[in-house]
Amino acid sequence: MSCNWGTELWDQFDNLEKHTNWGIDFLERYTKFVKERADIELSYAKQIRSLSKKFHLKRSREDDSRFTWCVAFAATLQQLNDMAAQREDLADCLHTQIACDLTRYTQELKAERKTVSQAGVQGRFHVLGVFQSKRRFERDCKEAERAQHVSDRIDLDNKADGEKQKQQAAEESRKEYVTSLNQFNQDQHQHYRTLVPVIYQRIQDMEERRIERIAEAMRSAAESERKVLPAASRCLDAMMDAAESIQPRKDTGHVVEVYKSGFDPPGDVEFEDYSANMRRSISESSYLDNRAEGRKHSRKLWPFLRKNKTRPPDRSWQRVEE
Amino acid sequence: MSCNWGTELWDQFDNLEKHTNWGIDFLERYTKFVKERADIELSYAKQIRSLSKKFHLKRSREDDSRFTWCVAFAATLQQLNDMAAQREDLADCLHTQIACDLTRYTQELKAERKTVSQAGVQGRFHVLGVFQSKRRFERDCKEAERAQHVSDRIDLDNKADGEKQKQQAAEESRKEYVTSLNQFNQDQHQHYRTLVPVIYQRIQDMEERRIERIAEAMRSAAESERKVLPAASRCLDAMMDAAESIQPRKDTGHVVEVYKSGFDPPGDVEFEDYSANMRRSISESSYLDNRAEGRKHSRKLWPFLRKNKTRPPDRSWQRVEE
Repeated sequence: MSCNWGTELWDQFDNLEKHTNWGIDFLERYTKFVKERADIELSYAKQIRSLSKKFHLKRSREDDSRFTWCVAFAATLQQLNDMAAQREDLADCLHTQIACDLTRYTQELKAERKTVSQAGVQGRFHVLGVFQSKRRFERDCKEAERAQHVSDRIDLDNKADGEKQKQQAAEESRKEYVTSLNQFNQDQHQHYRTLVPVIYQRIQDMEERRIERIAEAMRSAAESERKVLPAASRCLDAMMDAAESIQPRKDTGHVVEVYKSGFDPPGDVEFEDYSANMRRSISESSYLDNRAEGRKHSRKLWPFLRKNKTRPPDRSWQRVEE
Repeated sequence: MSCNWGTELWDQFDNLEKHTNWGIDFLERYTKFVKERADIELSYAKQIRSLSKKFHLKRSREDDSRFTWCVAFAATLQQLNDMAAQREDLADCLHTQIACDLTRYTQELKAERKTVSQAGVQGRFHVLGVFQSKRRFERDCKEAERAQHVSDRIDLDNKADGEKQKQQAAEESRKEYVTSLNQFNQDQHQHYRTLVPVIYQRIQDMEERRIERIAEAMRSAAESERKVLPAASRCLDAMMDAAESIQPRKDTGHVVEVYKSGFDPPGDVEFEDYSANMRRSISESSYLDNRAEGRKHSRKLWPFLRKNKTRPPDRSWQRVEE
C-alpha cells in the first residue's frame, strides 16, 4: 500500500490537521518532560553538593588530616561533590542542548505548518460562480421556452421578436455557465491532482522530520545520561579506595605521637622521716623493710606532686583531696 | 615507636577521653550523613517516579501504540520508573543496612566505653590517707622533740615520762604513716603498671574497631551505590534502543491506514442542459468542445455534492457559499 499522504489522504485534511497538531503537542510535552527532568537533576545535584559541603570537617582540629578516617571521609565528600558536578552537567545538557533546541525547533515547525496551510488556502476554489450561472441559465431557458409557447398562440409580428430575444438571453447565460463550469472543473482538477498532493506530501515530510527530531532528542538525552555513568563509576572507585585506605592501627599510633608526654609513670612516694632529730628507742628498720625503695628509673621521672609541673598527670584517676 | 596506648599514654586520660569522644561524635555525624544521603536519594527517586507517571500518555487515544514514537516514549518512561526503583533500593540500603546498623553500633560502643570508664573509676587510689598520716607523724615528732628539750631542762622525775609518752605517740603515727604510705605505693603501682595498661589498651581496641567500622560503612555505601550503575546502564541502553526503534515512515504509513477513506478525488461536474426543450438557432457544439468529458474513473467515485454522503469530502478547501 502506498504511504503517500498526498495521494492517499486527499480528503482527510481535518484528520491530518488533528494528527499533526497532536504531534506538535507531543513535541511540546516531550520538551516539558526533558525540562522537568533537568530540574530534578539540578535539584538533586544541589542537594548532593550542599550535603558534601555541610559535612566537610571543620578545620578547627588542625590535626584532622593525620587520621586516615578523616582523610577518607574528606575524600568521600570530595567525590560526592564531583558527582554533583556531573549531575549539574547532565541537567545543563538536558536543558540547554535538548529542551531549548526542541523549543526552537517547535517554533520553526509551527511557522512552517502555518505557511503550508496558507498555501492550501490560496489554492481554494469556489463553486458559487458555477451555481449562480447554472441557475441563471435554467431560468433563461424556461423564459425562452415560455416565450416560444406564447408566440405559437399570438400574432406572428411580435412572435419572432420576443422569442428571439429570450433565446439570445438563454444563449448568453449558457455561455457564462459553460465558462464558469469549465473554470470550476479546471480549478478542482488542479486542486486535487496537483495542489493537494504537493501540500499533503509536505505535511507528511514535516511529520516525519518531527518524529525523527523526537528520536534524536531521546537518543541525546539517553546518551548524555549515559556519559555520567563512567564518571560516577570513577568517583565511586575513588570512594572505595578512600575507605580501603583507612588504617585503624596507624590512627591510634598517631594518637600516641600527638599526646605522648614522655614521662614515666610515678614511682613510689618516699618516706619522710621527721623523727631524725629525735632520740629514739625503736629502730627504723621496721618500716624501712616494707618500702619498695631502690627501684631504678631508666626514663625521666614524672615530677609527682611538685608544683609547676610541665605536663599534668592523669588527674582523673586520682582524687587529691588536700 | 610503640603504639600501645596502655604504656605510652598512661598520663593522657583526659586527652584520650576527648579523642575517643570525638570519634563517637564522628560516628554519629557519619551516620547522619548517610541518613541524609539516603533521604536525598529517596526524594530524587520519588521525583523521577512521579515525572514518569505524570508524562505517561493518556490512553484516551487508543491508537497510541500504533506509533513508534509513542511506544518509544512509553518505554523511556518505563525505564525511568525502573531507575527510580533502583534509587529507592539504594536509599533503603543506605538507610536500613548502613545508617541503622551504625546507630546500633554507636549505642553498643557508648555502653562499652562506659563500662571501661567505670572499671577505671574502681581502680582509683587516694593520696589523702598518706597526707593525713604524714602530717600527724610530723606533728607528733615535733611534739616529741619539744618534750625532749623540755625534759633536758626540768627535773628528771617527770622528764622520762613526758618524753617517753610523746615518743610513743610519734612511734604510733609513724607506723600509721608507713602503713598508709605502703598502701598508697602499692595502689599506685598497681594502677599505673596493671590497670591503666589494660584499660587503655581496651580503649585503643575500641577506637580501632570504631575506625574499622567506619571504613566498613564507607565501603558498603560506595558498594551499594556502585551496584546501581550497571542497572542504570541497562535502563539507558533500553532508552537508547527505544529511541532507535522510532520509524518516521512507518508512523506516517499508519496514519494512511487509520484515515484513508478509499474514495477517489471528485471528477468534473457535468453540464446540465436546460435548453433541451428549446428551439435553438445556435449549435451546442460551441460549448461542448470545451468540456473535459469522457474522463475514465477506474476507482469508486466520490459522491460530489450529493446529500447523505457516506464520507464527507475535504470541506476545508472549498467554500460552498450557497
